[in-house]
Amino acid sequence: MAFTYTRTVRFQDTDAAGVVYFANVLTMCHEAYEASLAVSGFDLKVFFSNSTTAFPIVHTSVDFFRPLFCGDSLSISLTPQKLQSDSFEIAYEISVGEKMAAKALTRHVCIDGKSRKRQELSMEMGLWLQQWGEQITET
Amino acid sequence: MAFTYTRTVRFQDTDAAGVVYFANVLTMCHEAYEASLAVSGFDLKVFFSNSTTAFPIVHTSVDFFRPLFCGDSLSISLTPQKLQSDSFEIAYEISVGEKMAAKALTRHVCIDGKSRKRQELSMEMGLWLQQWGEQITET
Amino acid sequence: MAFTYTRTVRFQDTDAAGVVYFANVLTMCHEAYEASLAVSGFDLKVFFSNSTTAFPIVHTSVDFFRPLFCGDSLSISLTPQKLQSDSFEIAYEISVGEKMAAKALTRHVCIDGKSRKRQELSMEMGLWLQQWGEQITET
Amino acid sequence: MAFTYTRTVRFQDTDAAGVVYFANVLTMCHEAYEASLAVSGFDLKVFFSNSTTAFPIVHTSVDFFRPLFCGDSLSISLTPQKLQSDSFEIAYEISVGEKMAAKALTRHVCIDGKSRKRQELSMEMGLWLQQWGEQITET
Repeated sequence: MAFTYTRTVRFQDTDAAGVVYFANVLTMCHEAYEASLAVSGFDLKVFFSNSTTAFPIVHTSVDFFRPLFCGDSLSISLTPQKLQSDSFEIAYEISVGEKMAAKALTRHVCIDGKSRKRQELSMEMGLWLQQWGEQITET
Repeated sequence: MAFTYTRTVRFQDTDAAGVVYFANVLTMCHEAYEASLAVSGFDLKVFFSNSTTAFPIVHTSVDFFRPLFCGDSLSISLTPQKLQSDSFEIAYEISVGEKMAAKALTRHVCIDGKSRKRQELSMEMGLWLQQWGEQITET
Repeated sequence: MAFTYTRTVRFQDTDAAGVVYFANVLTMCHEAYEASLAVSGFDLKVFFSNSTTAFPIVHTSVDFFRPLFCGDSLSISLTPQKLQSDSFEIAYEISVGEKMAAKALTRHVCIDGKSRKRQELSMEMGLWLQQWGEQITET
Repeated sequence: MAFTYTRTVRFQDTDAAGVVYFANVLTMCHEAYEASLAVSGFDLKVFFSNSTTAFPIVHTSVDFFRPLFCGDSLSISLTPQKLQSDSFEIAYEISVGEKMAAKALTRHVCIDGKSRKRQELSMEMGLWLQQWGEQITET
């Protein structure tokens, strides 16, 4: 079951071309990620400054289909998926009303915050992946 | 009656000192301003790209009382006040729970977007000022 | 011949994890793009607000290899390449000293700023592509 | 002797009104502050993430005189001044060519990064204040 985050485009998000500055679409996707973590019970202050575990982004991409304007009401749908024991990726779909405006992806690895060595995803992240990820039904 | 806007501090708002980057407090105040305009019926896309009328900020100030952290739930109270026929200012109070974190101010003038000459505030802005401004009761 | 842009990482670029916020790497790449246009003689104010021609980004991606810290001196190497008569892409390599920190890509289409219909790249953009793009030597 | 920092306005700094977003002027001032620290020999990574000493901003203000456009070449003049044994302020003047575009101010206190209690300015900051501050000549 995907997580859905709603967000109004603000003046700060736009640039002199009159539309949302391209990199800010990723910032909005990250906001959706943060919102999903908060809903699942994570303490964001601890999560994003924790030296024992961090989930840096190692890859990201965006496809832009239509421009976004100040005041637009966005719906951002987020679907995480576990990749390996120490990594996951998140697919985002940003739409305005019925129209798809952009699709994005962030790929994360789990590391020890101090040594920056890879480590297995925690049980809590496993639960978050299950909560918002696609159901994989065995037959 | 002040307008109140609630906003969660996001990872993007923070800096390497672990707290909200100082200039981002003004961005959050401007978000509250945008939200109050939307509630009063303004079309934000038109409002912020309109060549006939614009309300640029000519002065701003902030007093910071305590640091803000990722995940903090902010309450931003906004109170506008007309200054002259072509200008107004907005006072903002940013609090986390019961604790005041910052106070800010933005002063705006009304100009023609093309000539950039000052002009009188529109009737719509007059109504917005009345809706959210302090009641001045005559005796 | 690639264009090279140097840029110091600033406090504003970082987040509470102590390193550059992921989406800001794209902002730095776009700065390199702007700098290359300025060196080639483009007027940036006109270029980025021109209603007759615009070059919106339709796709972007980044691979992150190592974290960037406040004060780091970055070297961003930019290599554009024409794709079709109405599109081009730019490859970016961000390094700190001898170490590659990230690789990014932006893909642009040329449109009429008002109708938003695709149109052929202008002669000026053709020259910019030649100036900074890879030499394709015929045999 | 004031420190002078030059900076080109970038697309990212602008908003849908076609000019620099007001809060970004403070970001540019902070860049000038960072540049002055680097020139005086401070390691920015340590300076801005140091738990033993930090210099948070407790007050800021800006007066805006004219709009700034993408591509504008800014000159930011910075003059620090010691206020008390544990505080200082910085005055900034932002100009484009001969024309003053904005004046800003940031007031900083020196604290212990962990306890967040006020402490005296270090000798290094004293030297920085002397290097870039106004000469006070005794008669």
